This record gives sequence, structure tokens and C-alpha cells, in this order.
Amino acid sequence: MTIIEELKRALGPEAVLTGSEIGERYVSDASLTGRVAPMAVIRPRSVDAVSAALSICNAHGQPVIPQGGMTGLAGGANPRGGEVAISLEQLAGVEEIDPAAATITLKAGTILETAQAAAADAGFLLPIDLGARGSCQIGGNLSTNAGGIRVIRHGVTRDNVLGLEVVLADGTVLSMLNKMTKNNTGYDLRQFFIGAEGTLGIITRAVLKLKPLPAARSTALVALESYEAVIAFLQKAQRELLALSAYEAMWQSFVRFSSKAEGIKLFEAEYPFLVIIEEDGDGSEVARERFEGFLGGALEEGLIVDALIAQSEKDARNFWTVREAVTMDRLLPSLVNLDVSMPSGEIGRFAEACEAELLSRFPGAHVSFYGHIGDSNLHIAFSLENASESDLHAVDEIVYALVQRFKGSISAEHGIGTLKRPYLGCSRSPEELEAMRRIKHTLDPKGILNPGKVI
Amino acid sequence: MTIIEELKRALGPEAVLTGSEIGERYVSDASLTGRVAPMAVIRPRSVDAVSAALSICNAHGQPVIPQGGMTGLAGGANPRGGEVAISLEQLAGVEEIDPAAATITLKAGTILETAQAAAADAGFLLPIDLGARGSCQIGGNLSTNAGGIRVIRHGVTRDNVLGLEVVLADGTVLSMLNKMTKNNTGYDLRQFFIGAEGTLGIITRAVLKLKPLPAARSTALVALESYEAVIAFLQKAQRELLALSAYEAMWQSFVRFSSKAEGIKLFEAEYPFLVIIEEDGDGSEVARERFEGFLGGALEEGLIVDALIAQSEKDARNFWTVREAVTMDRLLPSLVNLDVSMPSGEIGRFAEACEAELLSRFPGAHVSFYGHIGDSNLHIAFSLENASESDLHAVDEIVYALVQRFKGSISAEHGIGTLKRPYLGCSRSPEELEAMRRIKHTLDPKGILNPGKVI
Repeated sequence: MTIIEELKRALGPEAVLTGSEIGERYVSDASLTGRVAPMAVIRPRSVDAVSAALSICNAHGQPVIPQGGMTGLAGGANPRGGEVAISLEQLAGVEEIDPAAATITLKAGTILETAQAAAADAGFLLPIDLGARGSCQIGGNLSTNAGGIRVIRHGVTRDNVLGLEVVLADGTVLSMLNKMTKNNTGYDLRQFFIGAEGTLGIITRAVLKLKPLPAARSTALVALESYEAVIAFLQKAQRELLALSAYEAMWQSFVRFSSKAEGIKLFEAEYPFLVIIEEDGDGSEVARERFEGFLGGALEEGLIVDALIAQSEKDARNFWTVREAVTMDRLLPSLVNLDVSMPSGEIGRFAEACEAELLSRFPGAHVSFYGHIGDSNLHIAFSLENASESDLHAVDEIVYALVQRFKGSISAEHGIGTLKRPYLGCSRSPEELEAMRRIKHTLDPKGILNPGKVI
Repeated sequence: MTIIEELKRALGPEAVLTGSEIGERYVSDASLTGRVAPMAVIRPRSVDAVSAALSICNAHGQPVIPQGGMTGLAGGANPRGGEVAISLEQLAGVEEIDPAAATITLKAGTILETAQAAAADAGFLLPIDLGARGSCQIGGNLSTNAGGIRVIRHGVTRDNVLGLEVVLADGTVLSMLNKMTKNNTGYDLRQFFIGAEGTLGIITRAVLKLKPLPAARSTALVALESYEAVIAFLQKAQRELLALSAYEAMWQSFVRFSSKAEGIKLFEAEYPFLVIIEEDGDGSEVARERFEGFLGGALEEGLIVDALIAQSEKDARNFWTVREAVTMDRLLPSLVNLDVSMPSGEIGRFAEACEAELLSRFPGAHVSFYGHIGDSNLHIAFSLENASESDLHAVDEIVYALVQRFKGSISAEHGIGTLKRPYLGCSRSPEELEAMRRIKHTLDPKGILNPGKVI
């Protein structure tokens, strides 16, 4: 019996796709690299089915690729050929919302936006949020420890996980669907699988923290003269705003391009830096006055040089449209988005050095910067007409060498996948890599889970 | 050459204590169990010295016990005889505060209160806080993933760790002194060592998150008629107070005993439940009015039946004195404090069942309840005149069996150590225990690190 026959017998033939049944969605994530079809795609509907599938694959030493919403940017869910892809898309749905514990229990294939809507219906906020919310899945969010725009208030995805159910390479199910904030009973195995990009186990269910749904949100766009001011204003915001929920900085070259592309004029003048700042609140007059007072104080102190307070949803939307820069993505040829982090105080100097090095090597290129500065996270947009593979490779080399010099991380929120794997040594020591290899070998001795990814 | 001679040669003779040089502090933590002296105590002053010591011990297969402030309650740092204790007390001090990144870098032996004071001097709050702050050490706080009273606002200790330096059993140093909130570059090895009670490696340095120092804090004591009201009032507080920073519930029998013991009268009448509630704020009139309005609303809705707002530091101190119940600890014979957690909505029913079972077995006993309800954490005070070892054993058996029935955790914040090790199976499945054993074997193949603890 072939492995495909065995899988069909165990899971039912409808759960196993082969040949022309394998659609485009299973060949690449949003990085659109690789584009090789897997040998088969299985779509289990239960934890037991995931366990059965892994147990069969492990017995055969058959490589397996866990797949979620395929919105990753590092190639972490891409087949390299010959693998069995396990798509979690049919293991989806909200299992429970516990209002007293403030938790939501979800199957791994649940779309993030679906989970957010279910939480909101129950009067809660699911704090995990990122641009791909409409198609990314909870299991993928956890496996990549996804970042996003609300980290400054609610922490990274890891911080919002209470319980986890995971299937190990040999089919063993670890059921750790804990709902408690405090639980110190031996090693916190949950942590091993969060951010491991499916190389140590497949996440099948999770219990996540819920927060109160904010009644309202105040949004402003401010202009600043220097990166030092961006940091000083951030510190003031953290001291004075109890519920600071976004702090997104944009460098001048980024604003110039994106606001033109979107056809949105923000300020009359141009400034070295713009920041979108948001605070959650109760929507009261008092809260609005306090937010305005905070901005007035920053203007008086000379920390910021101009400010626009959103008077409507539409105003706020406009600020975010420039920040999200969807049109820019389409207009710039061979656009590469690099995702790095370093201590917040260093980001200004890093950006200067990075721009200088990239433009000296590629004089005609577009280089611009934006990021979640409150979370030490910088994004770099690089674009070059007719860029070759080796040009893009040179960009990686330049940027990651610089990141290493600034003691930063080559991946703030996108993960390692295949695309950043050659550069992992820029951010992790040989001793750390060796420890990672040992952990991998312990939990997946045959190396069937997502081989070639991360390490 | 004996191992002691080898250690003396590598670390200097003054760093190695033997025989009568080994003081009382190295024989037991605050649980005062065990009380066996180790073979030697070493007090390294550098990471290199910790590495050298472990490398020697590992070569000899010599068991090692990491020791911090010895304030644990689970026997996790207690020798069993024949071990080399490694006390981190001389590897202490604040290395750096980075205001832009909002981080503090500390050596593991730094006393928590010293670190808090250094942060406060720089205008920041170190959010980790617990009763033993004056003698517990950062390394121990991290190794036990300590809980405490500010978890509801700032998360458990794990959530506040950015960077970690750890020495593995064989002396390998993992230097992961990261300052970034977002860093997704392969397995998050830091997480393995947090809460592992020194069984996987010895933490030598850490980078912790700092938060803005709150200018003021509003404190109230409220009275409630039922556990359902305790939960409903918590939910209202989480919705309406942006900076809720403590929510501590006390059951009637606890209040009765502790307020008498301390000589502090709180309310004229007795109530089934009292809650201490605190909110961080800017100390403004507006903030005070909002806090009072919140309490007024809860009274009107009938969620709470009485409220005292602290008008001074002294008022607030009185509330906390009853909660901390230091005198009660001295007055009650053979007092046992059990530390458990379960989904917050279940705690009321659990406490009822627990009281009934304990009093049915031990009719004359004192049984009372209090805890960090916002973090799903309940403490149980049990005391019995002339209790025997086997009586105390029966208490553990009764409570942990009940915890298992309520799908809770046998250790919310105290850890497992030796004292809870026999009951670990109440909260962790055989599959989880097996995974824990495999991880332990991978990182410490000779089993020299804190043997007999946790697993």
C-alpha cells in the first residue's frame, strides 16, 4: 500500500488531494517563491485525523508541511517537492468563549477575522491583529508568533496564548488547553511550538486571551523633525496615555511615495517623520480632551511640529491607508519588504546607514522606511527597476550584515521560513543554533516536519 | 584532584564554601523543608565562572543546585545531600537601563527590590513585584516564572522578559540578551529556561521590560455578596478602568481571621467577599472622579454592596496588611498555604467544595481563601492544631484531586520544586511529562542540574 492509499484509508478519500486536485493555494505563501506542488494535500477535519496522518507519515519518514492561510512572507509553508501538505483549513471554528475567564477557544484553521468578529459579538477584543486578518489562520499566527499593529498595547501573539493543543511528529497529541493566566507546573511546552513555524509540531487548537472591547479610539497623525523626537514623543505617550494602542512611524521618503500613490494629502508641508498614534478609550468628552491636551503639550514642548486629529473614521482610515501602502506595493517594480528589529534607540542611525549603503550600491533604487517603532520593529521597502536575483541577494546581504552590527534581529515578525534561513547566523550564535538543532531532533527525530525551514 | 579542588583552582578558593563555612541560608528555601547541607557552595562572580563550574561538574556527573534568594515555597532550591550549590548572590547588579528601549539589564543575583529601585530612579516601573521583593533574586523570579500582584496589568514574569543569558549543564553559554519586543528568528530558547526551576540551565543575566512609573494609584476596598458578583465586578473593572493594576479577593473567613490578627477593622459589617481594587493613574482630579464614578456605578447596579476609597497611603496600607496576613502566618499552627489556579468562573464553586471536603476530614481546622482572582489564582490557608505529616499529606491529596476535577493547575505561581512533584500528574498528561523528560535529557544529558526537582 502506498502512503497515499494509507492516508486515504485512514482519513477518508475526500480528505486527500493529489495531482490536478491540488490547487494554486497550496504551492506558495504570499512571498510567491518556490511554487512547487506538494505530492499530496490532506485536509483533516479533526485532531485525531491530524494525529493519524502524522503517525503514518512518521512511520514512512515522509516529509510533511503544515499550511495555514498561506499569507506568510518567508516561504515557511512552501513545498519544495515531494511533501505531504497538511492544510488546517477544514479544522476551523470557534469552540467556546468563556466570559468569566475572558478566553476564546479556537480550532487552528479559523480565519483571524472570523475569530475577531466572534469575540466582538461577545463584547471582547481579540488583541491579535495584522494586515492579513481576512485570510490568515490562527494556527499560522501562532506558528509564526505573528506581530502586527496592536503589540504595543497587548504584546506579541505569544503573550496572548493561554492554551495550546499540538500534534507531535509521531502523532502524539499534547493537549494543553489551559485557560489560566498563572500556571507554573513544569516546563511550559506551549512556548516551544509558538513561533517554531511548524517544525516541532502542528498546532490544532488554542485558547487565547480576550480583552475588553474598547468603546472608542482616538487617532492622530503628527509630524516630527528628527528620529530623536520620534523616541522622545513615544516615551511621553507611554507615560501619559494609559491605553496607547498604536505608534507607527513613517520616514519622509516613504510618506512621499505612498501618499502620492494613494492620492491622499496628509500635511501641506513635508516633514522628516510622521507618526500615527492611537489610544483606546471610552469615547467620552473627557477622554477626547485628555488626548488633545497630550498633543497640545507635545507641540508646546517642541517634540512634535504639527498634528492632525482624526475627526472621523474616514480621517483615521486615510492615515492608515498611507501607512499600509497597498498601492505602493503594486507600483514599485520588484518591491522587497524587509522586516528587521533592533533596540528602538538605534533605529534612526540604522536607517541612515542602511539607506546610504543601499543607494551607494544601487543609485537609482527606491529605499524607504516605516515601522512599529514602539515594538522596535522597522520595515524597509526596496525597489529597483529590472532587479536581478543577484541584486536582491545583495540587498539581503547588505541589510542583514548591518542588522548584525546594530545587534538587531533579521526577522521581527515575519519569521525565518526558507528565505531568511541563510542569514539566521546574523542573529543567533552557533551555540543557539546547536541548541535549536538538538531540540528539533528530540521532538522530531526523523525530521519529517517542515524540513528545510528555520534551521 | 577532587572536584572541590578543581572548583577552587578554577574559581579561586574564596568562591568555594565547604563544611562549616556553609551557612543556614544554603540549606532550605522558605518552605523550611529538607534542611540538608550541600557538599559545597560556590559563589561565582561572573558568567565565565558559572560556565567553568558547570563544565567541571558536568565532567564529573556532579549534581548541582542553582540557588537564588531562597524565598521559594516548593523546595526547588533545597539540597538533598551531596550536591554542589551554585548561589548567584555575588553575580548581582544593574548593568544598564536603556530609556529609549525601555529595558533594564540585570545580573541574576540582583535583589528584586534593588532592581525596582534602580528602575524607579530612572523614571520607570519594573512590573515584576511580589511579597518577597526584599530578598528574592531576579534569577529566581525568572526560573520560577514568579507571579505576584501586578500580573493583571503587566502579565506574568515570562511576559516581561526580553533577553536572557543562560549557562547549560555542559558550560555552554547561550547569550540571548535581546532588547527587542519583536524578534522571530527561530526557536525562542529563552522560554525554555523561564519557569524551569534551574533544571535546564542556570540563568545568569536578563533584559527585562520597563513600563512608565505611574504617578499615582487609586485604591478601594469593596464588599460583595457572592462569588458571581466578584466576577461580574471584575468584568466591569476590566471594561471601564484602563489601568486596572490589582484585583485581590478575600473570602469572609479569611478576612475575619486576618483583620482580627492585625487589629484592623475594615467594614462595620461582615460580608461574604471583600475585594481590593487598584488603578494606576496620573493623580489628577479627573482620574479620581472617574474611579469614584466607577465605584458609584457598581453600587447602583448592585454589583457591590459597600466601598471604602483609600484617602491616604495609610488607608491603602491597611487594606493590604489584611490581605498579606503576615500575622496570621504566625498565629495559625502548622499553617499551609496552597497555591492553585483554575478558570476564574470556577473558583467560587471550587472553594465551596474544597472547604466542605477539608472540614469534613478535619472538623476543627482553619480553612480560608484569598487570591489574585483576575489571574485565575487562588490561595488556600489551612491550619490544624497538632497536624501530623500524614494529615498534611491528606490535605495535599484532597486539594489536588479537586483541582484536577476542576481542570485547574496544582501550582499557579509557586512552581513544582520537590513538594508538588508527586502531584504533577494532576495537571499534566503522561504525554506532556514524557515530552518534558525528553527536553530535560536533551539539554542536560547527565541529569546534573537540580536533580529530583520538577520532573
